[in-house]
Amino acid sequence: MVRTIIKADLSKKPQEMPGHNFHNRYHPDIPAVVEVKQDEVFKVECYDWSGGQCKNDDCVDDTYEWDLSIGHVLSGPIAVEGAEPGDILEVELLDIQAHPDMPWGFTAILPEHRGGGGFLGDLFKKPAKAIWDFEGIYAKSRHIPGVRFVGVIHPGIVATAPSRELLDEWNRRESELVNSAPDGKGSSMACLPLPHLAILGKVDKDPAKAEKMQKEAARTIPPRENGGNADIKNLSRGSRIWLPVYVKGANLSLGDIHFCEGDGEIALCGAIETAGIITVKTKVLKNGMSMYGLKRAPMFFPGPIDPYYSRYLTFEGLCVDEDGKQHFVDTTLAFRQAVLSAIEYLTKFGYTREQAYLFLSACPVESHIASIVDIPNACVTLGIPTEVFDFNILPNGDGPKVMVKGSHPPAVPK
Amino acid sequence: MVRTIIKADLSKKPQEMPGHNFHNRYHPDIPAVVEVKQDEVFKVECYDWSGGQCKNDDCVDDTYEWDLSIGHVLSGPIAVEGAEPGDILEVELLDIQAHPDMPWGFTAILPEHRGGGGFLGDLFKKPAKAIWDFEGIYAKSRHIPGVRFVGVIHPGIVATAPSRELLDEWNRRESELVNSAPDGKGSSMACLPLPHLAILGKVDKDPAKAEKMQKEAARTIPPRENGGNADIKNLSRGSRIWLPVYVKGANLSLGDIHFCEGDGEIALCGAIETAGIITVKTKVLKNGMSMYGLKRAPMFFPGPIDPYYSRYLTFEGLCVDEDGKQHFVDTTLAFRQAVLSAIEYLTKFGYTREQAYLFLSACPVESHIASIVDIPNACVTLGIPTEVFDFNILPNGDGPKVMVKGSHPPAVPK
Amino acid sequence: MVRTIIKADLSKKPQEMPGHNFHNRYHPDIPAVVEVKQDEVFKVECYDWSGGQCKNDDCVDDTYEWDLSIGHVLSGPIAVEGAEPGDILEVELLDIQAHPDMPWGFTAILPEHRGGGGFLGDLFKKPAKAIWDFEGIYAKSRHIPGVRFVGVIHPGIVATAPSRELLDEWNRRESELVNSAPDGKGSSMACLPLPHLAILGKVDKDPAKAEKMQKEAARTIPPRENGGNADIKNLSRGSRIWLPVYVKGANLSLGDIHFCEGDGEIALCGAIETAGIITVKTKVLKNGMSMYGLKRAPMFFPGPIDPYYSRYLTFEGLCVDEDGKQHFVDTTLAFRQAVLSAIEYLTKFGYTREQAYLFLSACPVESHIASIVDIPNACVTLGIPTEVFDFNILPNGDGPKVMVKGSHPPAVPK
Amino acid sequence: MVRTIIKADLSKKPQEMPGHNFHNRYHPDIPAVVEVKQDEVFKVECYDWSGGQCKNDDCVDDTYEWDLSIGHVLSGPIAVEGAEPGDILEVELLDIQAHPDMPWGFTAILPEHRGGGGFLGDLFKKPAKAIWDFEGIYAKSRHIPGVRFVGVIHPGIVATAPSRELLDEWNRRESELVNSAPDGKGSSMACLPLPHLAILGKVDKDPAKAEKMQKEAARTIPPRENGGNADIKNLSRGSRIWLPVYVKGANLSLGDIHFCEGDGEIALCGAIETAGIITVKTKVLKNGMSMYGLKRAPMFFPGPIDPYYSRYLTFEGLCVDEDGKQHFVDTTLAFRQAVLSAIEYLTKFGYTREQAYLFLSACPVESHIASIVDIPNACVTLGIPTEVFDFNILPNGDGPKVMVKGSHPPAVPK
Repeated sequence: MVRTIIKADLSKKPQEMPGHNFHNRYHPDIPAVVEVKQDEVFKVECYDWSGGQCKNDDCVDDTYEWDLSIGHVLSGPIAVEGAEPGDILEVELLDIQAHPDMPWGFTAILPEHRGGGGFLGDLFKKPAKAIWDFEGIYAKSRHIPGVRFVGVIHPGIVATAPSRELLDEWNRRESELVNSAPDGKGSSMACLPLPHLAILGKVDKDPAKAEKMQKEAARTIPPRENGGNADIKNLSRGSRIWLPVYVKGANLSLGDIHFCEGDGEIALCGAIETAGIITVKTKVLKNGMSMYGLKRAPMFFPGPIDPYYSRYLTFEGLCVDEDGKQHFVDTTLAFRQAVLSAIEYLTKFGYTREQAYLFLSACPVESHIASIVDIPNACVTLGIPTEVFDFNILPNGDGPKVMVKGSHPPAVPK
Repeated sequence: MVRTIIKADLSKKPQEMPGHNFHNRYHPDIPAVVEVKQDEVFKVECYDWSGGQCKNDDCVDDTYEWDLSIGHVLSGPIAVEGAEPGDILEVELLDIQAHPDMPWGFTAILPEHRGGGGFLGDLFKKPAKAIWDFEGIYAKSRHIPGVRFVGVIHPGIVATAPSRELLDEWNRRESELVNSAPDGKGSSMACLPLPHLAILGKVDKDPAKAEKMQKEAARTIPPRENGGNADIKNLSRGSRIWLPVYVKGANLSLGDIHFCEGDGEIALCGAIETAGIITVKTKVLKNGMSMYGLKRAPMFFPGPIDPYYSRYLTFEGLCVDEDGKQHFVDTTLAFRQAVLSAIEYLTKFGYTREQAYLFLSACPVESHIASIVDIPNACVTLGIPTEVFDFNILPNGDGPKVMVKGSHPPAVPK
Repeated sequence: MVRTIIKADLSKKPQEMPGHNFHNRYHPDIPAVVEVKQDEVFKVECYDWSGGQCKNDDCVDDTYEWDLSIGHVLSGPIAVEGAEPGDILEVELLDIQAHPDMPWGFTAILPEHRGGGGFLGDLFKKPAKAIWDFEGIYAKSRHIPGVRFVGVIHPGIVATAPSRELLDEWNRRESELVNSAPDGKGSSMACLPLPHLAILGKVDKDPAKAEKMQKEAARTIPPRENGGNADIKNLSRGSRIWLPVYVKGANLSLGDIHFCEGDGEIALCGAIETAGIITVKTKVLKNGMSMYGLKRAPMFFPGPIDPYYSRYLTFEGLCVDEDGKQHFVDTTLAFRQAVLSAIEYLTKFGYTREQAYLFLSACPVESHIASIVDIPNACVTLGIPTEVFDFNILPNGDGPKVMVKGSHPPAVPK
Repeated sequence: MVRTIIKADLSKKPQEMPGHNFHNRYHPDIPAVVEVKQDEVFKVECYDWSGGQCKNDDCVDDTYEWDLSIGHVLSGPIAVEGAEPGDILEVELLDIQAHPDMPWGFTAILPEHRGGGGFLGDLFKKPAKAIWDFEGIYAKSRHIPGVRFVGVIHPGIVATAPSRELLDEWNRRESELVNSAPDGKGSSMACLPLPHLAILGKVDKDPAKAEKMQKEAARTIPPRENGGNADIKNLSRGSRIWLPVYVKGANLSLGDIHFCEGDGEIALCGAIETAGIITVKTKVLKNGMSMYGLKRAPMFFPGPIDPYYSRYLTFEGLCVDEDGKQHFVDTTLAFRQAVLSAIEYLTKFGYTREQAYLFLSACPVESHIASIVDIPNACVTLGIPTEVFDFNILPNGDGPKVMVKGSHPPAVPK
């Protein structure tokens, strides 16, 4: 039988679980909680990123209380026998399943003081929340009718521990960005170390040491050289990822399970956030980092059972902003314009703008950088799989029919 | 029999062809050269974007003579019966084939004064050129050994004519961008109207009128609201695209055939540039623009026979630049880092950096915006289909083997 | 939470489980053990077909003791609210998972007196057994090295209960076939009712009634109008199947979980046989049988996440037998010849004939009827997904390399 | 430029073309008409199988005049440099295109004395004919409304020449089959050598020799060890096929272009029959036949651009005949039952039985042998891609709507 090396009891908070098997910061001195052999198959249970803060209900009241400082609750670190700095750690995600005790997930636009609305946060300032129920491989939501799709389940985070030098480098460059921001804007530029709600695994048994490390341990919000919160939807069942090793044992961490997600995860709390169980196998490629030139970020090889969604209604976006101003080859802005067009299109069928935004964030939409050399415009595309709708979403001569009425994600307090 | 409404004789220059069936600028007053009925199936022949300037040889000498002012040579305009401003024009690309008289294509890094090296132009300053030979559905190059792939053939440009108002708007916003640039940098920010080598179709029969229009007609370099040079590789055989109609008849133009292209078309002259023949059918959705909210850019629905490349070795890129500076959620920079990692990886197998760059530009690589809300990093991925290599390109414990030697795209004058 | 309506405790025999939730014969008078509502999502646990007779070991001794009379152990019957004769029952297989207590499966050639070797039983007369270990979504076997593949998990059996009239019809036509066989051959032509080891669910609480019903209840070996043992590998996760309803409540039964299987399931005990858990939703289409003309056998719609195996090394088979005799459009014989060619091919790489046969039976190979009108030959194809091998299985100028040595499924008693 | 080694002028009959580049019988002594080098890319033009006998009209009158003795008109033989008996000839079908002078095709049920109705010929005794118009990659028919599909274009026939010994063997075994048939039935069992309308290429320049060879040259109707009329729809663009070599030069023949076809090609003249152009490359694997055990029939590897039809409404068929008689594991009968169920289903939507039969024969339906060991029933499936219909073809609670009316393939003489 495959052994489960880390268990998540969803009726308890992660920081209260014995064993100190969870953490939410990166630091080279967080000790591994367990060691695995190469080629050993093992299971790891994971909380949702928030450690269980979302209620499965029909109002947004709870979002006002969420504390993002606890994110992301990660399982590990896991030491891999034989891994040393300079190696590559190959992590094979043999399977990923939703946690049996949480057969549902959530996608949310958060209140501004709780994190806000993500990519289009300037336009979506009120909280909204959609609960998704899992029907086997499918997700559907009572808050967004008319759609059902296969979950491309994946961990938002697969990461190795940083070295001391790398951690210092992260803190240097992110501090510089914060410090270069206009007054009062720095905190929205990056997430610097934060002692509040920091969980450092076994270190927490030594409060003095923990207090010191909390001030320098890296937040898990951004993806970095060690992998981390890349939020890649295609890192799904059967995938292999190649991560750099910076410390002895590699110290692998996993978490932030997404039952599904659209490219970009635009709503911030934007995937279908849930708890889950990952089956893993690891291998060490000795001296792989220099042999393969791996340094900026990981490589991966998606698995063979992504859903067969091959036909996408696709929106083009250019880098001309809403005021008609031309920008220079800005793919971020071009993506924004594609998302805006998709939202407007969906509202023609009766969806509210919040429903459309949450849907595009959670459904396996595909976004490609189509062209990046045709100055001054970049072209970015956003494709929605047409098969996920109960009705025909393609344009035709009759015009759109309002298919969805009288239902919306709750956008005001109860 | 399907009628060919526009013919391209590759032994002649497009501007010398009788009928004035070609143009290379957008202007509402360029008259249609032919009218088609809705649901009529017709064929359109297209030159390569340059009108035949590239030599099928093994040196880069010709690139020093290319004149980009002639780009893109487009076939049309084609009036569609019944199309009026405010409608949507549905264009179905029933088939796309390479031109029988040009069974080859080219991908190039141009000399700086001739356009330069595209997305990584700061790093690729010397010209290089790869000639691709078509073997049926496949492309292979004597300048980039070890790879062969199925062409995802598509027109870089499918466009309707702009209205007077839209043309003015383009000139306003692009002029503002140019004028806001530092001294001497404006010309690299956008391509403003240029009389040199302008072709205006039937207008050219009236030199006085042509001279006036050349000064305001829009260049075809960037994609815009009317479609245009979106360079979307998935707009391949069997696709449908929905374009806004701004003038009576819609005045459809087609051209810039790519036998294949990677997402981004990074090398500028970066697809496998060639001539071709498109089989087309059109339909008008009356008042479609307001009914479906189409205004920023077109929508499309890819066809059902893209190649079955489903497994991609994928590189992640973050928005930390080569100097270690942290940028804020910059997907363009993140894409750059993914491309740099892919180039470095390919060189481990023996490819030169130029070969790697041209390959990534021409092969159907896929680039996704993976995450855009994980401040301060964006994560963009670049996936290379593993099946296109003659050898195993995946990392393994043995390290990369140098599979490719002693061959490279010519990077110096003869 | 989704309720589990039938539980399988693998440490017990199915006939010993309280609740009488299992049965292994079809009869209209076996009462339903539970009722579900339409659109209700529920889970059903299933034993392997044999109720746990296979040992996870490295010898074939146990196969001499297996008793096929117990097959197939089915979960149910399950009554669906509102279903009546003449309706169609739509069964959606929302998810299918291997049972957590049986993370392995088996494929076997049985001893002749225990069932024999299936489709090529005349050539494979000695028992052989391969144990497959599940690594997440993948199956691999210590008895068949060099291959690993994604399991196309499915229930071999999804069935409704027959009416009295249909049961009588089955017994009539199958008896006729047995009776028309030459002396002593009848028992190999069909499996007529058999009291030995019959399990009739709740009926077993009334031994007198059970004894009577055992003599007429239909065996579950063949697929019939009610679905049953169709062994369709593509009836996997996310599929919908439309079954005829013959009795009030439809009385749905499920079982015979296959972690994977090749088209044909050629080795008889030929899939990767295992236990599992199915998540189900049902719907009733009133009067569907006549509305849609459903009578001969079910229809189904495969799910959207079959593996991406799109490239198959494919063998053609014709209906000329091994003695060179020409048969007339016989697809069964043509399939046999394709299988023989595939086995011979695989032995060139070092596999034993038994390994090849078990592999082709368990791996998701695809068999198509290519042509059936080109008298006198039929052409049937057998395609093996090339990606499942650790090595290159395609023919090339160098000839096959022996990649697999010194390992084989145990083919003799310990 | 790729050279076209054999040209087909569709305005002429194949036997009237200079060069004697066509033949319609197999015989080792038909000399090659051209030689190619290994790895050379070349094009071959092909007539439709009948050499142009079908009229593009709306009645069946012409079918009464067709003479099947001329089938199949093949292009070649083509000698490959270096190929010798015992080698394998690898033939790569780099591209396949419909002939520009025949942008349409035909599917027909023939009058009984002209060949009949194929697989269900006992039920379809009156002629019917559907003309398909090609719209780029798509086929649609004015005789079968409501459907349009991507053509899986392929040559029905790719064959090498037989040796003297092999030819004798074919004649022996097929004569035996004919002779073993009941009185008067032999001619429907196989197609023995037939001088009438035989074309033997360059041999025809020597009438005496031709007359002798016509009596022993094999018909091209059935597939055999040398490949031949396997009618495999997936042998489409980009495929590789490995053929045995029996004579010096291999003497490759190609023809019987199908714009599309369903598994089985059930209606006899059942694909979308047309003319076409194939781009080919060959390679010789020395001594490949023994190295790889190739003897019964060819192997192949389908290309990478089959259409993305991944969702199929699938009918199961069992080997119980229409009279309720149980047969023993008869996949041919099981396939028949699946076809009958599909036809009945389609008539519920308004199609005539003839339309349904022709559609199932021409559309890329998929037929799998699902199970072959569940005595006494075999289970064969027939899947129809749902995307090819203009309307929703899946069953639902509302019952089928009659979508197609007042149109049918002409089934009576004008």
